[in-house]
Amino acid sequence: MKSSLNRPLNNSDRKGVEILSIGTELLLGNIVNTNAQWISEQLSSLGLNHFRQSTVGDNTERIINIVQEIAYRSNLLITTGGLGPTPDDLTTEAIAKSFNVPLFERESLWEKLKQKLSNSVLDDDSCLRKQCFFPKDAQIINNPRGTAPGMIWEPIRGFTILSFPGVPSELKEMWKESAEDFIKKNFSDDYIFFSNTLKFSGIGESTIAEKIDNLLSLQNPTIAPYANLGEVKLRITAKAKNKSEAIKLIKPLKEKLSQEFPKYLFGENDDSLPSVLIQELKKREESVVFAESCTGGLLSSSITSISGSSQVFKGSIISYSNVLKKSLLNISDAQLNKYGAVSKEVAETMAINVKEKLSADWAISISGIAGPKGGSKEKPVGLVYISIAGPNHYISNLKKIFNPLRTRTEIQRLSVNVCLNSLRLILLSKSK
Amino acid sequence: MKSSLNRPLNNSDRKGVEILSIGTELLLGNIVNTNAQWISEQLSSLGLNHFRQSTVGDNTERIINIVQEIAYRSNLLITTGGLGPTPDDLTTEAIAKSFNVPLFERESLWEKLKQKLSNSVLDDDSCLRKQCFFPKDAQIINNPRGTAPGMIWEPIRGFTILSFPGVPSELKEMWKESAEDFIKKNFSDDYIFFSNTLKFSGIGESTIAEKIDNLLSLQNPTIAPYANLGEVKLRITAKAKNKSEAIKLIKPLKEKLSQEFPKYLFGENDDSLPSVLIQELKKREESVVFAESCTGGLLSSSITSISGSSQVFKGSIISYSNVLKKSLLNISDAQLNKYGAVSKEVAETMAINVKEKLSADWAISISGIAGPKGGSKEKPVGLVYISIAGPNHYISNLKKIFNPLRTRTEIQRLSVNVCLNSLRLILLSKSK
Repeated sequence: MKSSLNRPLNNSDRKGVEILSIGTELLLGNIVNTNAQWISEQLSSLGLNHFRQSTVGDNTERIINIVQEIAYRSNLLITTGGLGPTPDDLTTEAIAKSFNVPLFERESLWEKLKQKLSNSVLDDDSCLRKQCFFPKDAQIINNPRGTAPGMIWEPIRGFTILSFPGVPSELKEMWKESAEDFIKKNFSDDYIFFSNTLKFSGIGESTIAEKIDNLLSLQNPTIAPYANLGEVKLRITAKAKNKSEAIKLIKPLKEKLSQEFPKYLFGENDDSLPSVLIQELKKREESVVFAESCTGGLLSSSITSISGSSQVFKGSIISYSNVLKKSLLNISDAQLNKYGAVSKEVAETMAINVKEKLSADWAISISGIAGPKGGSKEKPVGLVYISIAGPNHYISNLKKIFNPLRTRTEIQRLSVNVCLNSLRLILLSKSK
Repeated sequence: MKSSLNRPLNNSDRKGVEILSIGTELLLGNIVNTNAQWISEQLSSLGLNHFRQSTVGDNTERIINIVQEIAYRSNLLITTGGLGPTPDDLTTEAIAKSFNVPLFERESLWEKLKQKLSNSVLDDDSCLRKQCFFPKDAQIINNPRGTAPGMIWEPIRGFTILSFPGVPSELKEMWKESAEDFIKKNFSDDYIFFSNTLKFSGIGESTIAEKIDNLLSLQNPTIAPYANLGEVKLRITAKAKNKSEAIKLIKPLKEKLSQEFPKYLFGENDDSLPSVLIQELKKREESVVFAESCTGGLLSSSITSISGSSQVFKGSIISYSNVLKKSLLNISDAQLNKYGAVSKEVAETMAINVKEKLSADWAISISGIAGPKGGSKEKPVGLVYISIAGPNHYISNLKKIFNPLRTRTEIQRLSVNVCLNSLRLILLSKSK
C-alpha cells in the first residue's frame, strides 16, 4: 500500500467502536440523526463498547480526515449515509482514498441492479452504476430494500469499516441480515448486554428515583430511569454470557421493583397503557366506551391504535360543542348553566349516559380546558374532570389540574394517560 | 497558562463551528440526539458554517481529548449535556482541565440557586452546589428553566466554548435568551440563512422532484425536498444580508412552485392540514363533524389538537362496532349485510347521517381496514372508504387502497390525511 496518507495509521493499541454519520443534511439540521441512536442500541445489545460518534457533511476531504483519525484510535467503524447515486454521495470513494486504495466495479452487482430495476431502462452510463464500485477486497453487504449496497472492509490490519446507506429502513434490514452476525463473530467478547424496561404511571420520576436510590448505583445489572409525559421507565440492563443468564440477573431486581411500586408498575418493554387496559378488559370480557370533550378523540385513538382493540372498545361520542353534549349525551341545559361544561357534575352525567347509550360495561368521560385559550380564574387552563362509570352503578370522579404552562397537546396527552391508568387501577381493585 | 496539555493548541488557522454532545445515554442509544439537530438548525439560520458534530460519554479523559482536538481546529464549540449536579456530570470540570484552568465558586450563583429553590431546604453541601463552579473569566449563561447554568468562555485566544445543559427545553431557552445574540455579534459574517418551507399533500416526493428537477440544482436559494407520511415539504433556503433580502430571493421561487402545484400546495412553515382546513372553514363560517370507524378517533384528535378548532368542529361519532353504526348512525342491518361495514354504501350513509344528526355543514365519514388483522381477499388490509357530505346534498365518495405492508398506525394516519386534504380541495373548488 502506498503511503501518501495525511497522518500515521499504525497503532497497535487500537480499540473501541465508533459511529460516523455522513450527510450535509445532518449538519444543516434538516433531519434528526436517528440512525446513530439505533446503531448505538444495537452495539449495546451486542455488548460492544462504543466511545464516540461523529457527523460530517458530504465532503471528500473532511470524510478522509475523520476516517484516518478513527482508523488510528479504534478498531471498528460503522458509517451511514453517502452511498447513493448522486454526485454528493461520496462515502465509498472517500473511505477508499483514506487508505490510498482504488475502487473497482463489481460487474455482478451492476447486473443484479439492472435485474432489480427491470421496470425501468438502465443505461450503462446511469448514475446508479456508481454504487457498484468498491475496493477489491471489500465484502459486499446486500441491500434488499434499496439500490445502494454497503461493505465490510479491513483496509489495514486491525481496523474494519462497515458502511451502510442513510435510509433508516435499509440500514436496519442490512444490519440484521448481514452485519449483526459479522460483528458478533469478530468483535463481541463473550458478553452481551440485555435490557428489560419496566413502565410506571401515576408516579413521578423523582419519587421513584428517591425510593430506589440505593439501586441506582448498582453495577450489574444497572438501572436507568427515564421519564416522558405521565410515564416513567426503569431500564434494567444486565451484562452476561447469554440471554438466559442476563434474565436471571434481572429477575430479583424486577421482583423487588414490583413489590416496591405495585400500583404504579403497569407493564414492561412494548406494553403501553392502552395495550395493558385492552388486555385486562379482554380477560374480563368487558367493553368500554368514551365521551370525550377536551381530548377531542385522543383517548379513543390511543385505544384504537392497538390492533385487537375492537374486542373491547365499541365506540365514542366526541361532544366537543355544548350543543352535542345536549343532543348526544342528554346533558340538560339546567346542568350546563348551573355547573358549566367543565365540571364534576357534567363529567359524571356524560359517563353515565354514554355507558347506557352505547351499552357498555365501562365508560370514561372527560371534560376540561386544554388551552392555551378558554381558561378563567375559576376554571384555569389545565383543569380536567374525569368520570368513570362501571357495572352496578359504579362511579368514580377525578379532578386534575395540570400545569397551565404545558402545551395543549401535552395537557391532552396527560389527560388521556390519567383516564387509561385510572380505569386500569379500578379494574385491578375490583376483581370480577 | 501552564502547558501540561496533551496536544498542541496553537493554531492560527482555526475556523468553523463544532457541536459536542456529552452523555453516556447517547452512546447507549437510550435517547435520540435531538439537541444536535436543533443547534444545527440555529447555526444554519445564523449563517454559520459548521463542519462536524461529535458525541462522547460522561468520561473526563475522553471529554478532555475531544475538547483539545476541537480547540486545535475550530474557533467555536457548542457543548450540551453534563452540567447537572450528579457525579456523572463532568462537562465544566473536564473543559477546564482541557486548558489546565481551575474552577472557582461563584457565590452569587449559589445564593440565586438557594432563592430559586426556596421551597426545599438546601444544605451548603448539597450536590447542586457543584453547578456554581466555573473558570474565573467565564461568562455565565443564566438558566431560567433549570438549575444548571451554562457558560461562554474563551480559554485561549481565538477559541470560544459555549456550554448548555442537555435538557432540550433548557438549552433552547438559554440559547434564545443569551447565546444567539453573542454568536450573532461575534461569529456571524454578514450573511444569514433564511428558510421557507412549502407543504404539499396528495402528491409524491418523486413526482415533485421530477417536475422541478432544474430547480433542485439552484445555488441560492437552494431547494431541498423532504417527505413523510402523506406530506411532502420543499425547504427553500436563501443566503442573504438580512431577512428581507432573503425573502426577496425566495419570493419568485415560491410563486413558481405555487403555479406548478396549485392543488397540492396546502401551506407553509407551521401550517398543517388540520390548521389549514380549520382556517378555511372559519372563513366560510361552516362547521364540520366526523363519523369514524377504522381511524378510531384519530381524525377528530388531529383537528382538536389545534387551538381554536372548537369554532368549526362540533364533534364526532366513533362507531367502531357495527352495533354502534346501527344505533348511533342509523345504518340498517340490510345495508350492513348486503355491502359490509367497509363499503362505499355504508361510508356514504354514515356521512349523510352524521351530518344531519350533529347538524353540521360538512361531514366526513371513514370506514376501512387498518390491519394488521381483519383483511380478506375482497377487502384487504389498507382498503379505506371515505365519504364527504356537504350543503345542498353534496356528496363525494373516495376509495383508497394503501400498501398493506404499512403499519396500522401508518394506514390510520394516511387515511386521516386523505380525509383532511379531500375536504380542503372540495372547499377550494366550491367557493361559498
